Amino acid sequence: MIVLALGLLLVIPAFAQRPLPEGTKVSETALPHRQYPRVDDSRHIYWRLYAPEAKNVYVDCRGQVPMEKDPDGWWYAVSKPMAVGFHFYHFVVDGVTVTDPDCDSFDGRYGRSAAAEIPEGPEGDYYRPQQVPHGSMREIPYWSEYEHQWRRAMVYTPYEYDQPKNARKKYPVLYLQHGMSEDEGSWPKQGRVANIMDNLIAAGKCKPMIVVMNSGNCGIRSGTPGVDFNAWAASFEPVLIQDIIPTIDREFRTKTDRDHRAMAGLSWGGKQTMDITMSHPDLFSYVGLFSAATNVREDQFDTVYNGILADADAFNKKFHYFFIGLGTEERMSSAGLSELLTKHGIRNTFYSSEGTDHEWLTWRRFLKEFVPHLF
Amino acid sequence: MIVLALGLLLVIPAFAQRPLPEGTKVSETALPHRQYPRVDDSRHIYWRLYAPEAKNVYVDCRGQVPMEKDPDGWWYAVSKPMAVGFHFYHFVVDGVTVTDPDCDSFDGRYGRSAAAEIPEGPEGDYYRPQQVPHGSMREIPYWSEYEHQWRRAMVYTPYEYDQPKNARKKYPVLYLQHGMSEDEGSWPKQGRVANIMDNLIAAGKCKPMIVVMNSGNCGIRSGTPGVDFNAWAASFEPVLIQDIIPTIDREFRTKTDRDHRAMAGLSWGGKQTMDITMSHPDLFSYVGLFSAATNVREDQFDTVYNGILADADAFNKKFHYFFIGLGTEERMSSAGLSELLTKHGIRNTFYSSEGTDHEWLTWRRFLKEFVPHLF
Repeated sequence: MIVLALGLLLVIPAFAQRPLPEGTKVSETALPHRQYPRVDDSRHIYWRLYAPEAKNVYVDCRGQVPMEKDPDGWWYAVSKPMAVGFHFYHFVVDGVTVTDPDCDSFDGRYGRSAAAEIPEGPEGDYYRPQQVPHGSMREIPYWSEYEHQWRRAMVYTPYEYDQPKNARKKYPVLYLQHGMSEDEGSWPKQGRVANIMDNLIAAGKCKPMIVVMNSGNCGIRSGTPGVDFNAWAASFEPVLIQDIIPTIDREFRTKTDRDHRAMAGLSWGGKQTMDITMSHPDLFSYVGLFSAATNVREDQFDTVYNGILADADAFNKKFHYFFIGLGTEERMSSAGLSELLTKHGIRNTFYSSEGTDHEWLTWRRFLKEFVPHLF
Repeated sequence: MIVLALGLLLVIPAFAQRPLPEGTKVSETALPHRQYPRVDDSRHIYWRLYAPEAKNVYVDCRGQVPMEKDPDGWWYAVSKPMAVGFHFYHFVVDGVTVTDPDCDSFDGRYGRSAAAEIPEGPEGDYYRPQQVPHGSMREIPYWSEYEHQWRRAMVYTPYEYDQPKNARKKYPVLYLQHGMSEDEGSWPKQGRVANIMDNLIAAGKCKPMIVVMNSGNCGIRSGTPGVDFNAWAASFEPVLIQDIIPTIDREFRTKTDRDHRAMAGLSWGGKQTMDITMSHPDLFSYVGLFSAATNVREDQFDTVYNGILADADAFNKKFHYFFIGLGTEERMSSAGLSELLTKHGIRNTFYSSEGTDHEWLTWRRFLKEFVPHLF
């Protein structure tokens, strides 16, 4: 058996003839002890795949990158210079989607996908583990009465939450949502929430808080033909309000008033955040829209969300912090939202992420900018 | 942007002409809202893949299962009757390994892999979430001085660990290892440790305890040509002893004496468990060998592990419980170990898992049988 298992290990094709390209290093997203995918300081991604019988192979990574075949059966490609940050990709081999066997797997792109990361450099230390006290990223199951099924919540608790001296101390809560096609595993893994929170809390830059992440995919299912975008996004609201918040307030030591509850979300989750917080000002007092797929029509400004935007003074007293972020390389429907709110007297903070696209480095930066203003 | 994203959703090929096979249901391992992989009550797995241009496609799942192409470009296959439980698989399309896009991804098979599960039926309720108090499966980073890198530990804490009244209560610890090719994510995900522990603790069948899971892949790397199997397995020992145990005893409320520390592991991790516990009787007093890739040569019985097996009386006083488990459908080198130990007067419990192979249902059952005897 042992011999058999070791035999399996050695079935891996022999190393390619092509030497590793100079000036490159292995992507942070590669599996342990692999050589590819690689990146360089000029923001290129280097891929390879063994497919000796294939006729046509390309990489799908924000556009198609053709691969080139060597006589030994290995295909290679190099991307154009990419925005810094995290980019999903897959290979397409004679029409079939192929996941890179050398890469870790991330929840996203409508399934499980490989990804490469162009590092931010030392500025990215805020999302890497450091020698500071570490909180826990926890997984807990909970029964959703609304969905009538078991679901999974990811819950970050700060280091001090577990200290015996704090055994009766209560904490504020941030509900944090992923984007379309991803799920509750996305912020913990590619979002690196625990590292970001550990580092900010250790530096005294934000208050210790609980961060709760759930799948926003409820009720109406993704990919349902003819699905109404608004109805699909809205299907998360009753699950959050009726099932998740009561579960978290029961299972964790939380402060349960609106002054100690925040919500933020990215892209599609930003739309959910806007819709839910504006419809439930009794429950939330902090709002974060990260590259949000949402906007407000000016001709409906005074009526939308039960007219909550019509009275700017009342709104500004109610909401303690309203954050809107966009990357300079992305185009989202929320692009004009900050100006529109400001024009109507609604206080908000706009943050522009330099050089980043609709991807995870943008959202890691937003989280880092957002949470210091909470609670 | 929204329109673009929804457009992507609809690029998914139209549903196949072939109706869903009668008497089948979606595997528990499929991604949400997918139709495949499927299983039936006769322990078959049903697969499909869209690959209109491919010439030769098969499934690699404990042997090769040829796939058959329909005129619409979809390929189908049905397995032979499988052992109940969890089976890794992948497609091979014209020589290229393809991960099933409809399936969740699991750490294993030398990368990230799909898997299907033949359910045990209602007897499997012990590894499914139930309406009982739930502990947390936590992820924490820690610095390994020995490996000189950040590593990740998965730590199960029982429900009562978080109750304020227990804020100064200390708990015993089980260190639990995965098999070759897998990692610290395997027991939490495919092993369903949190559900098993939650259910046993709620039923009063085992003591509340902390369960700690780490990657056993250290030092010498898997896949290194000419690697010595023993040296590879042994490379985990200093990391566990010097880095992990001190970290867990510092970060969690643990009982730190040998009477409150257990170790168990499956397959290759069973070999590590045997080697480490027999070499460190000062640290461990409970041992679980799950389908272990280990044995003891009778002609070395009195000398191996510094002669710890030579004095059965002393051994039986030292180790409170010694568990050896094997599935009836698997062949492992530890098959004769229980008899050999018994013949030499060493007390041990042998448990045979009926109808299961070298796979996760076997190991879920062993965990359920093992932990009630701890502490």
